[in-house]
Amino acid sequence: MRTQTQIPQKAFSADSGFIHSYQQLVRKTVIPYQYSVLCDEAEGAEKSHVVQNFINAAKALKGEDSGDGFYGMVFQDSDAAKWLEACAYSLALFPDGELERTADRLIEKIADAQDQDGYLNTRFTICDREKRWTNLLEAHELYCAGHMMEAACAYYEATGKDRLLNVMLKNAEHIYKIFITDGHEGFPGHPEVELALLKMYKTTGSKHCLELAEHFINVRGTDPDYYKKESLRRDWSVWGNDPGDGVYQQSAVPVRKLDTAGGHAVRAVYLYTAMADLAAETDDKELLEACERLWESITLRQMYVTGAIGSTACGEAFSVDYDLPNDTAYAETCASIGLMFFASKMLESTVDGKYADVMEQAFYNTVLAGIALDGKSFFYVNPLECVPGISGVTAIRFHTLTQRPGWYACACCPPNAARLISSLGKYAYGENPDVAFCHMFVQGTVSFSNGLTVRCETEYPYGFDIRYRIGGSGRLAVRIPGWSKKTSLSVNGTQREIVLDRGYAYLKVSDGDEILIRLDKAPRFVYASSRVPGLSGRACICRGPLVYCFEGVDNNGDVLSLSLKSGGTVSVLDKENELGGAVRLSADAFRITQQDRDGHFPLYSSVPPLKEACSAIAVPYYTWCNRGENQMRVWLPVE
Amino acid sequence: MRTQTQIPQKAFSADSGFIHSYQQLVRKTVIPYQYSVLCDEAEGAEKSHVVQNFINAAKALKGEDSGDGFYGMVFQDSDAAKWLEACAYSLALFPDGELERTADRLIEKIADAQDQDGYLNTRFTICDREKRWTNLLEAHELYCAGHMMEAACAYYEATGKDRLLNVMLKNAEHIYKIFITDGHEGFPGHPEVELALLKMYKTTGSKHCLELAEHFINVRGTDPDYYKKESLRRDWSVWGNDPGDGVYQQSAVPVRKLDTAGGHAVRAVYLYTAMADLAAETDDKELLEACERLWESITLRQMYVTGAIGSTACGEAFSVDYDLPNDTAYAETCASIGLMFFASKMLESTVDGKYADVMEQAFYNTVLAGIALDGKSFFYVNPLECVPGISGVTAIRFHTLTQRPGWYACACCPPNAARLISSLGKYAYGENPDVAFCHMFVQGTVSFSNGLTVRCETEYPYGFDIRYRIGGSGRLAVRIPGWSKKTSLSVNGTQREIVLDRGYAYLKVSDGDEILIRLDKAPRFVYASSRVPGLSGRACICRGPLVYCFEGVDNNGDVLSLSLKSGGTVSVLDKENELGGAVRLSADAFRITQQDRDGHFPLYSSVPPLKEACSAIAVPYYTWCNRGENQMRVWLPVE
Repeated sequence: MRTQTQIPQKAFSADSGFIHSYQQLVRKTVIPYQYSVLCDEAEGAEKSHVVQNFINAAKALKGEDSGDGFYGMVFQDSDAAKWLEACAYSLALFPDGELERTADRLIEKIADAQDQDGYLNTRFTICDREKRWTNLLEAHELYCAGHMMEAACAYYEATGKDRLLNVMLKNAEHIYKIFITDGHEGFPGHPEVELALLKMYKTTGSKHCLELAEHFINVRGTDPDYYKKESLRRDWSVWGNDPGDGVYQQSAVPVRKLDTAGGHAVRAVYLYTAMADLAAETDDKELLEACERLWESITLRQMYVTGAIGSTACGEAFSVDYDLPNDTAYAETCASIGLMFFASKMLESTVDGKYADVMEQAFYNTVLAGIALDGKSFFYVNPLECVPGISGVTAIRFHTLTQRPGWYACACCPPNAARLISSLGKYAYGENPDVAFCHMFVQGTVSFSNGLTVRCETEYPYGFDIRYRIGGSGRLAVRIPGWSKKTSLSVNGTQREIVLDRGYAYLKVSDGDEILIRLDKAPRFVYASSRVPGLSGRACICRGPLVYCFEGVDNNGDVLSLSLKSGGTVSVLDKENELGGAVRLSADAFRITQQDRDGHFPLYSSVPPLKEACSAIAVPYYTWCNRGENQMRVWLPVE
Repeated sequence: MRTQTQIPQKAFSADSGFIHSYQQLVRKTVIPYQYSVLCDEAEGAEKSHVVQNFINAAKALKGEDSGDGFYGMVFQDSDAAKWLEACAYSLALFPDGELERTADRLIEKIADAQDQDGYLNTRFTICDREKRWTNLLEAHELYCAGHMMEAACAYYEATGKDRLLNVMLKNAEHIYKIFITDGHEGFPGHPEVELALLKMYKTTGSKHCLELAEHFINVRGTDPDYYKKESLRRDWSVWGNDPGDGVYQQSAVPVRKLDTAGGHAVRAVYLYTAMADLAAETDDKELLEACERLWESITLRQMYVTGAIGSTACGEAFSVDYDLPNDTAYAETCASIGLMFFASKMLESTVDGKYADVMEQAFYNTVLAGIALDGKSFFYVNPLECVPGISGVTAIRFHTLTQRPGWYACACCPPNAARLISSLGKYAYGENPDVAFCHMFVQGTVSFSNGLTVRCETEYPYGFDIRYRIGGSGRLAVRIPGWSKKTSLSVNGTQREIVLDRGYAYLKVSDGDEILIRLDKAPRFVYASSRVPGLSGRACICRGPLVYCFEGVDNNGDVLSLSLKSGGTVSVLDKENELGGAVRLSADAFRITQQDRDGHFPLYSSVPPLKEACSAIAVPYYTWCNRGENQMRVWLPVE
């Protein structure tokens, strides 16, 4: 049973504020740039060929020569889908006729590339048509379909236009015929279509979509050898994935038996998101309990303080409990986006601050770190320590780049972040007929379906006063973050005691009310469990939802010499224009000063290093690496 | 020019003491066990087939059926060679008719496997004879020849028997014909034959051996594309090594241009050993300067405090400067043995305590850690931190096993350690016509070539008094370790001022003199350069040459909760019989005690963890993991 749901995309609007500025960045910079990439018109970007693939597929369907054929990853189509989805959400926020016409034209190209039977995938339409549905492990046909379904729902929601939605309904019927009517075995190697089919069901009411989603979720892992059998039936492979690695591809056990988050992190959280959504939809307690176990497995034992998950580059995967290395972290941007999806769906069953706390933690730290402040370069991998000369160089750190690249062939993260940011209102606000929910503090106006309107004003995450101006009357539930140790609440200027129910303050509100919430603005030290080997004796600094880090550029080029003073003070500095208005912190610290002839302390010495007191300057983690390549460290030793 | 040389194997003898007990362990346990492995008679060990390979090769040479053919690694023959070398050194220490007969029989089998032209390698004698010398990159023919030459020299030195020496002289002449007379291009992918040929030259006076060693050293890297060309000429490969990876196989630049230790660590130090030996032999200053640069590259920037080198498992290789992770360390036992070889040869050009300090550091920590106290199991990889559940499990730590395995298919380290320990007298003592050198403190009697005898009595590394009783007269040079901050010297009971010349005290001694040296016995904290990212805010504890570590078994099963008290005291406990008489230390420390319902501090918390003062118990690093699987950590946070 759903306690509450995400608000519709168009229910939220804003004309200023922190999130608004990111939504503008996506609109003005990310979306146009990404479209130029899809069209192979972006200078310096790797060839994408995404749009041309659809054009060529349409030709192939007409029996014409398909030109230069298919190019790219087997999931290349999904780049178009994620761009369209971001574009749709952005159009809902910022109507833009020219952008909408561009999107419409792309949708026509996509429609043209759909086969008569509803099949839609340029890779297996342009070539190898006989290979359709024969390699669910690797071929990403259902993954691409899922992303296009999400785009279709978003575009319909934003514009009311059902062209793409009808294409994808037809595609869903085709998939239904293959997997349900014809009984084709199997389930997707990369979960995604499941959560998308549930969106299709919600948007269109198609029972077949619900049935298909249930089918793919329920059949997964029931035959742990399915992929081995499939691989024996084919004589080709995409990457040579091991069909026996059930943990990696989430096929080792039936989903209701899962208790440990494992394998490829994005695959995992996309699957868990669908599981949580289906559990809420069908009131499936066993499935919801599995989701709760997986949530605990992630957030109590396998998550970085930045809300990043998937600590190993080997398989872009979860590792084992408490294995959270700073320097070799994979911590993919997309995995944290998926974690937000999962959190949002868990909130629909159970309104509990623990879900929204993590959703916010992932967003303000790892997801935002994925995007340069100018919106032009992107991190796929988000380590918590970077030492140029070692990071990006040594074998176990090849993946931890020291600068955001502009684009990459496997471009999953940038458009994923774009669609997330543009639809952030859905994650920040929720509703049921009786209650309006504020899960995150996002400035803007929300028109809830029950008629209540809430205008939120805040400088969050740099200001900690949140003001809600109410239109209409009803009930409002505001999350009080777990990190806020001192919180005050006033209604129309009168202090009220805060009574928390699972992390939320529930209030009756009336037209014209002004609610003011003051969260704890003090920077705080955060310590990790001693079970995490790499964090022994260390602490990091957080303020509000933001994890801070220390960069060389603010600290004489050397953060490895810094340690925090135990019990020291942390002061709040002015906003930094260079960092998009981010607020820096200054912490009481020590710096090793002793030097040998080489300018440094010897490799090993029995003489304790000389230290001097200093102020260590910290910046929000998400702003790191916007001022050139330099050292960065989140966790410092404390002494 | 050589300032001094290693003593002959038979010049050292002992009947008690720390090293003697290890030499007895090698004699009584390691050598018999390893021979049973070579004969495939050891229970539970992986199939070796080494002896059978020689038998089968002899059959093949006679045109008979070669039975079950060749089995094993391409360098399988070298296991026999290293065993024979260890056996030879052990026979010199402990005459043993039965063992000698066993060795003689093996030598006959080896001799029978030599081709008429002098070629000796079972792999390419049993099969693929046409492939001889066509894959210098991978096929290890020169590597195996080198080890057998070392065995031949050792066996001759120990027993006076020249059967194997003549076999290997004939083999060297064959190699000379191929590479010098016939002008076959190339040089070995794994250095080893160079240092062996120099031993052959010293043992036999063969100028061809010297010329060959010079040739292989000088030609290396002069054509950086040599291996690429070689690989284009063949249609087979052993492991598919990249012929373009010149750093890995030490072929990127001519040896005199080297300035950074890089690539496969064992390959590197075997090569540097030969370079240093040749530089001393031929008074080649340019070559010696390259060796000095490489020594600094290793010891000032790339060496663990345990004397381990080669910090990355990727290529079993050196990484980059200051990349010395504790938990993912490769730190191969053989690489530290090779570092001792290199140190010993550097000492022959320049008597400087910095070489002997590192030689000792590598020996007492990494090399000894390679062998279980009972001599029955062996570490190949020597991390400085072990956390069962993470170590040996996660992708970047598959190689860091939590227990010593009994034997492995690629069995380089165990016999390598056996030959090193059995010949330790050569490393501990050196000589020239005028001076007797004591580089390491090894109890026993040394008869120097000039007639001086020195009897050393000491409980080192657990006692720090070293007593030398002199027979004859002459000059004695005793190394005073760099770590000894308080040292006293007395001659016949009279205190003498210590005048150090590059770390050595030079003394005139007369018959009947008794020299007593008292080294600093205080445990000491050691700190690392702040350039080593993983060691920020940490210290380790050393005493004498021993690095200590903290094991779970002594510390409530949990060393991750421990931190050392800054400025705290470290006390010396009694000898521990369970650890072969090792002395444990007790350090003032803190332990995190705060627990959540799960028995542990939450993953992240803004509440500082509660701590209580405690004593942290440390054991010598080399003794770790002799009491079952448990946590281990060398470097603890300091607060």
